Amino acid sequence: MRTIDWVGGRIVAIDQTRLPGELVPLHITTVPDLVDAIKRLAIRGAPALGVAGALGVALSAVTGGDVQAEAARVRAARPTAVNLAWGVDRVLAKVDEGVDAVVAEATFVLEDDVRRNATLGRRGAEWLVDTVGPRVNIHTHCNAGALACVEWGTALGVVRALQERQALGHVYLDETRPLLQGSRLTAWELAQMGVEHTVVVDSAGPSVIARGLADAVVVGADRIAANGDVVNKIGTYPLALAAARAGIPFVVAAPESTVDPATPDGASVHIEIRDAAEINPPTGSPTLNLAFDVTPADLVTAIVTDERIIHGKPLG
Amino acid sequence: MRTIDWVGGRIVAIDQTRLPGELVPLHITTVPDLVDAIKRLAIRGAPALGVAGALGVALSAVTGGDVQAEAARVRAARPTAVNLAWGVDRVLAKVDEGVDAVVAEATFVLEDDVRRNATLGRRGAEWLVDTVGPRVNIHTHCNAGALACVEWGTALGVVRALQERQALGHVYLDETRPLLQGSRLTAWELAQMGVEHTVVVDSAGPSVIARGLADAVVVGADRIAANGDVVNKIGTYPLALAAARAGIPFVVAAPESTVDPATPDGASVHIEIRDAAEINPPTGSPTLNLAFDVTPADLVTAIVTDERIIHGKPLG
Repeated sequence: MRTIDWVGGRIVAIDQTRLPGELVPLHITTVPDLVDAIKRLAIRGAPALGVAGALGVALSAVTGGDVQAEAARVRAARPTAVNLAWGVDRVLAKVDEGVDAVVAEATFVLEDDVRRNATLGRRGAEWLVDTVGPRVNIHTHCNAGALACVEWGTALGVVRALQERQALGHVYLDETRPLLQGSRLTAWELAQMGVEHTVVVDSAGPSVIARGLADAVVVGADRIAANGDVVNKIGTYPLALAAARAGIPFVVAAPESTVDPATPDGASVHIEIRDAAEINPPTGSPTLNLAFDVTPADLVTAIVTDERIIHGKPLG
Repeated sequence: MRTIDWVGGRIVAIDQTRLPGELVPLHITTVPDLVDAIKRLAIRGAPALGVAGALGVALSAVTGGDVQAEAARVRAARPTAVNLAWGVDRVLAKVDEGVDAVVAEATFVLEDDVRRNATLGRRGAEWLVDTVGPRVNIHTHCNAGALACVEWGTALGVVRALQERQALGHVYLDETRPLLQGSRLTAWELAQMGVEHTVVVDSAGPSVIARGLADAVVVGADRIAANGDVVNKIGTYPLALAAARAGIPFVVAAPESTVDPATPDGASVHIEIRDAAEINPPTGSPTLNLAFDVTPADLVTAIVTDERIIHGKPLG
């Protein structure tokens, strides 16, 4: 089953809040239901959000909604990943050409995600084997797997491609508090793939790297600024600091659509602050629930996209 | 109520596994009960473990146990904090002088902890005000508070002393997975003290620092090597990396007894690996539950003890 798909003029998606306990498909027939699924992270992951944005506009068009107003609501469901707005805008540009053109564009975005991720995964695996050697132990964070995309994955797409060429060692992954996308989703995917893996608490990631257990850090991205700063799930930045200190590559695997020419640098990205209930300290103390962090460009060894490998500035 | 105390020839300690929900005293009348309380972290924190080691030998002596054998069992209850062995050995040295001498030495260690922590707290606060300015925002990790000591605390002793001189700004603290000593214990202590504080997930600590919200990181230590490497709760090292990158002081507050001349560097410390059940990934995946990490000496701005402020090597 795909993470998100277009079936009979409606959206079908895996409810990621129910994993790993249950694999439950969500049948989404209205735009408000889609917005709700995105807000509560039933659909999540930057590339999957791009596809959700595209399919959301198609859903509005086939259900005869006010497409401009509904598209704006989908676009605003989460603020940080550039892909959501990218997917909405790309399909919205076809709205004057009629419903069929809108659906065709949305399903193209859907299928294109699979192709692009397979391409970037293989490119990343090749770069790692060339740089690190014939057997690569990976540290990853959050979930940039098939569950963050339509199929295949970005960071886990690289892992999948390493496995494909028999160059994969061990995978270490952070549990990724507060919502445990690592220990719930990435661990589930790795188990499905038959990959040897070990879960650590988030704060142990830098120690795994310092101990020489990982040959490279590979993560996804929610937005890549024009200067090469990378916005990704909270907890990415400490891994980049640790990788730089240990002298191992810090690799970002993301589709080209994650690179945002309109964002000059990480400091100009609106970082989503989520509800205290996700952290839920037993004392009821106040929280600052930052959903993402910024990894400065100088800590990023390579950005691997479906089109290129970037060392330094992606734009300008 | 003190975290750990000697009352009527027996040990009374707060059961820290029950906080913040309930403040329950443990009445410990046998050495096996003490060893159990240490192993399950009902008694925890490097200075409190030192006192527990000292009182454990006294308990063995007053209950007529095999003092050498029971002392060895207390000493081995946890491997990483040097203080536990230090407390045991210090009191064990008096065993030939009789039970009264043993109890006198153990209760001296107990009372001395309070005095030493108050001294180091005030020294640390003075250093921070001199270095940072008249209002200091702190980032801390785990619990190096009164609950890690007899009273007062080490890192939180510095916070307490800053509050005493009206120089305390905001305190940010990491929840400290897997056992949440930050969001359970430190948040509880800060609330009791009336200190404004904010809880973040562990992986957000480096972002709090990068955003300029903290003027200094202040943590405790389980062991300080002769070369100045600091072993402390897992998650300390990423904060040191982030503090160095942000150019803010990284301060370790610990009693002199934490400095171990027998440990040349961090690499030679036995890092405790605890049970997978503490992390408990929902997929049942394997874990590597490192309880501590090593912060290399070059990332430590100052070590504040009850006797001195150390910049660089504590010994040799």
